[in-house]
Amino acid sequence: MLKYQQIASEIEKYIVDHNLQQGDKLPILETLTAQFAVSKSTITSALDLLERKGIVFQVRGSGIFVRRHKRKGYISLLSNQGFKKEMEESQPTSEVIELDVVKPTQEVMDNLNIGPEEDVYYVKRIQYINGETLCLEHSYYNKAIIPYLNKEIVSESIFHYIQEGLGLKVGFSDMYLQADKLNKEEAEYLGLEPSDPKFCLEVIFHLTNGQPFDYSKNIYNYKQSQFFIQAISHY
Amino acid sequence: MLKYQQIASEIEKYIVDHNLQQGDKLPILETLTAQFAVSKSTITSALDLLERKGIVFQVRGSGIFVRRHKRKGYISLLSNQGFKKEMEESQPTSEVIELDVVKPTQEVMDNLNIGPEEDVYYVKRIQYINGETLCLEHSYYNKAIIPYLNKEIVSESIFHYIQEGLGLKVGFSDMYLQADKLNKEEAEYLGLEPSDPKFCLEVIFHLTNGQPFDYSKNIYNYKQSQFFIQAISHY
Repeated sequence: MLKYQQIASEIEKYIVDHNLQQGDKLPILETLTAQFAVSKSTITSALDLLERKGIVFQVRGSGIFVRRHKRKGYISLLSNQGFKKEMEESQPTSEVIELDVVKPTQEVMDNLNIGPEEDVYYVKRIQYINGETLCLEHSYYNKAIIPYLNKEIVSESIFHYIQEGLGLKVGFSDMYLQADKLNKEEAEYLGLEPSDPKFCLEVIFHLTNGQPFDYSKNIYNYKQSQFFIQAISHY
Repeated sequence: MLKYQQIASEIEKYIVDHNLQQGDKLPILETLTAQFAVSKSTITSALDLLERKGIVFQVRGSGIFVRRHKRKGYISLLSNQGFKKEMEESQPTSEVIELDVVKPTQEVMDNLNIGPEEDVYYVKRIQYINGETLCLEHSYYNKAIIPYLNKEIVSESIFHYIQEGLGLKVGFSDMYLQADKLNKEEAEYLGLEPSDPKFCLEVIFHLTNGQPFDYSKNIYNYKQSQFFIQAISHY
């Protein structure tokens, strides 16, 4: 982690610890520079990072302000964005239904950018939150990039393993979202009725070099899932 | 528009005009600098902006590559992100059902950060795409910020009016998403059955100074709407 990233984490922690709310003003640049004992350019880089992550907004000539939505229990769609603590408090757990090496379907080939002869790890899991089903996950990992997975790894955080265990650098992701009706199998896994609504989230994760390594299709229990995005300005 | 923003638009146009695909490499920095006849720092700022918008990704020591998803007909959730042309081709139109000045409900007060005595413009519209209903919109505008709206304005682009007509600077937005069942009124407007799925998107738009000015609740026809997000890395 670079210095400015570390400072960004500390400012984020400061916001949480002081329970700052949306619109609350952060100390001025000079105060932050003195407080963290780093250069002005490091603080500026840290604040730019926090702005890109949707955690603060900067008003020219006026100061730096906190962004923090008021609603509880929403899942952030931009991973690692916002305040991890909130999610950790609800203690999600997961159950592995299936772990297999398979040949990719056309859909998996298209999304992972691979040919029919390649192998993929298929992981089917159910996630639980507050004792209720949160989602049914179907994940496909390119085996040429993720050469080994086992039940222990996939019942914990796969991303932790990919980053810490394999030393791979996770980059950007493409997400596709829509509402639809549950099919019979999905309804059974989620404890809902067939043709109840579902929130579908497909995510293709890429390494920082642009290679897609994980294609996941997540079917969320509509009664347990609400999502949020703190979008930055593109105007 | 600043110089680097203009260059960013031109690079984006270059990507569209040359029909570049995900993973295609852009010319090297020196070539772009010469091609657009600007300084290296302007090109760097333009590329950083395009990276934040999810339009390119940069690989250290390797080059700049295009991000462009392959799926057609998806709506970008991060406004102005990606390729506007795609949406324009499907020619969305809208019908104004209601335009009124009202007192805010508790929900509207919470989201616009105003008191019960303030006035808000309430706009109810249906959007159509390819001759089908796309969504039912309920929008609330803080009248202290948007002092005047009429049918003509709200049947066109309200944001165009806010930016060009009122000279306001649109900043960041908070979005909340979930799937649920349509109620009877929503189903009627959308031409669907009650208890069919709906994709709900709530958006709170803020000015660059952090003031929320627009709280919108959009109910999407699940058969006509699919969304995408080109997320940048937060790892």
